[in-house]
Amino acid sequence: MGNIDYVEVIGLCAAVLTTAAFLPQVYKTWKTKDVSSLSMPMLWMFFTGVILWLIYGFLLESAALILANSITCISAFLLFYFKIKYRNR
Amino acid sequence: MGNIDYVEVIGLCAAVLTTAAFLPQVYKTWKTKDVSSLSMPMLWMFFTGVILWLIYGFLLESAALILANSITCISAFLLFYFKIKYRNR
Repeated sequence: MGNIDYVEVIGLCAAVLTTAAFLPQVYKTWKTKDVSSLSMPMLWMFFTGVILWLIYGFLLESAALILANSITCISAFLLFYFKIKYRNR
Repeated sequence: MGNIDYVEVIGLCAAVLTTAAFLPQVYKTWKTKDVSSLSMPMLWMFFTGVILWLIYGFLLESAALILANSITCISAFLLFYFKIKYRNR
């Protein structure tokens, strides 16, 4: 085994946490259908930003960026979709 | 002026959008004090992840990572604080 690069381990932990963070939010929103306190500008800016991170990842051929942002992109899309679907409940 | 590196422009736009996205959420939460649909596990995982991104940015001496994650760190901390403060309202 090679030496573990602790800098990259920190980056990887960061990526896993900020990617996984949106999964409990998606689950909660899906179960409760409560979108009252989610900000619509936050959702579309975040979704658009994540799409750009994904394009950036493909252009840099960065597996970490592509993987993390593919998952976050799905979470961000679902939250945006739930916000539109449940906003008038 | 040198050539504009369009790949880095896409990365920069991505960073600006995903950083700025949390500002309308912080503003909305501050004004309405409504935290009902914000997921607590999302908030602490996201906050911890952003702290790690910031450390990663300092270790890599990346100005973009440090700047973007400093601002996001403040937003994430405020949302976490609002969630604890207003959860029982």
